[in-house]
Amino acid sequence: MTKILYATDYVDKKTTEIKEKIDSLKTVPELAIIRVGEDPGSLAYEKGINSTAKKLGIEVNSFVFDKDSKTEDLVKKIKELNEDKKIGGILVFRPLPENIDEDEIALAIDEDKDIDCMNPINMAKVYNGEVDGFIPLAPKASVELLKFYGYELKGADTVIINHSNVVGKPLAMILLKELATVTICHIGTEDLKKHTQNADIVFTAMGKAEFLDENYFNENSTVIDIGTSKNKEGKYRGDLDEESVNGKIKAFSPVPKGIGSITNLLLLENVIKNKN
Amino acid sequence: MTKILYATDYVDKKTTEIKEKIDSLKTVPELAIIRVGEDPGSLAYEKGINSTAKKLGIEVNSFVFDKDSKTEDLVKKIKELNEDKKIGGILVFRPLPENIDEDEIALAIDEDKDIDCMNPINMAKVYNGEVDGFIPLAPKASVELLKFYGYELKGADTVIINHSNVVGKPLAMILLKELATVTICHIGTEDLKKHTQNADIVFTAMGKAEFLDENYFNENSTVIDIGTSKNKEGKYRGDLDEESVNGKIKAFSPVPKGIGSITNLLLLENVIKNKN
Repeated sequence: MTKILYATDYVDKKTTEIKEKIDSLKTVPELAIIRVGEDPGSLAYEKGINSTAKKLGIEVNSFVFDKDSKTEDLVKKIKELNEDKKIGGILVFRPLPENIDEDEIALAIDEDKDIDCMNPINMAKVYNGEVDGFIPLAPKASVELLKFYGYELKGADTVIINHSNVVGKPLAMILLKELATVTICHIGTEDLKKHTQNADIVFTAMGKAEFLDENYFNENSTVIDIGTSKNKEGKYRGDLDEESVNGKIKAFSPVPKGIGSITNLLLLENVIKNKN
Repeated sequence: MTKILYATDYVDKKTTEIKEKIDSLKTVPELAIIRVGEDPGSLAYEKGINSTAKKLGIEVNSFVFDKDSKTEDLVKKIKELNEDKKIGGILVFRPLPENIDEDEIALAIDEDKDIDCMNPINMAKVYNGEVDGFIPLAPKASVELLKFYGYELKGADTVIINHSNVVGKPLAMILLKELATVTICHIGTEDLKKHTQNADIVFTAMGKAEFLDENYFNENSTVIDIGTSKNKEGKYRGDLDEESVNGKIKAFSPVPKGIGSITNLLLLENVIKNKN
């Protein structure tokens, strides 16, 4: 029997916790979104955030800049939002157009409102092992889901397929903090199967729909699927070939109804983090 | 035949390069050292730096604070040194006494003079994959030595035994940038042998003299030994049991005459980095 690690129960529990916290607040901090242009991915993300925020009772303020905007236009707005006491968190959609200096934007965001962990001060904290502050959302969601299902990470052999700055690297830092052994694989890895077959837990964010079949795993494998991309039929799926592995491995988090359904919630939790 | 990766030839080549660079400079930047107290390890380190600096022709200015100094005393001095045009690099010896706020010290150092990569801005750059700036010295030395000996890191299966902020984590970042597959082991790792036996290159910084014998490796293993600690006879040795592995593995960097003999040189190279 393969256990499917649906996020549903975790999401319900977390939603209740956030609502309770909101009820205890004198004033509810608001979210500020900065979006440049009309990228379809960003629009979909914004829609999802708005929907979750509405359920929680958190106000969202979107500031939309046209594609030809300059770095200083965004920095000016960010500085206003830094000063604005009703704003609890600032989210800048990425990727930004090439004419905008992402490093400068990241530095402009007040580190206490940096809910998406863009500012290098917050990134450095993650890498220094301080994982209780703002940390990238998909890595945090992955580890939270495993803990919700009672997994012990200490001493576990883990493999991460992704070495990006927003997923693979920060996830490695969180797992190291938990004293898991961590292997980071990527496009340069010569024999991916060798690593995944020998791991207790595999985290994948390849963006190759249904790529990983039963041959990559063993009967004790748990897979956390962070990937989302279109399969041949044009449907959004994870990296895992769920049909192939079902019955052959220990457990996996599905796509949809897995990691992706947690991240918006954790983002919005960050808006009210450390507030009273 | 096991090849011993002595650092001697690399050190000679690098020394020549640095001297040539120094000869081309109108004025030679100087090193500023900040030391708090009389820790024997720090004193030995300082002595080594002075000796290497003398050979290269780089002036060293040491500023010694007593143990009861306050964070603001150090910050004041650092800010003076930031402004001082003749200073090319600032090195603060660690560990600092508990009454000093290391985070504040790290932030005070001008990022262009941060030769030991303490400032979180520079740390964040390393984690973002920008490894051409200031990066921690032992990781840099390890990779430089391998490249000197013609090793290809892309696709290599590497294991790092250390997950600290100054060795294991930044080394992982450099190796990922080279597209090596990276496994990070540490005190929580359940079966260290399983990982080291299957790796092409093992980097070790355990600080357990002569701990790793032939049973941890295979005939194609290369070991870069970053550990230094006293063995039973009171002699400083690496983590590798060199006698045991000699003839059984492909190659190793020795202790002494290995990584430890490179780091001071790279530190002093940083003092003149990007100067003209």
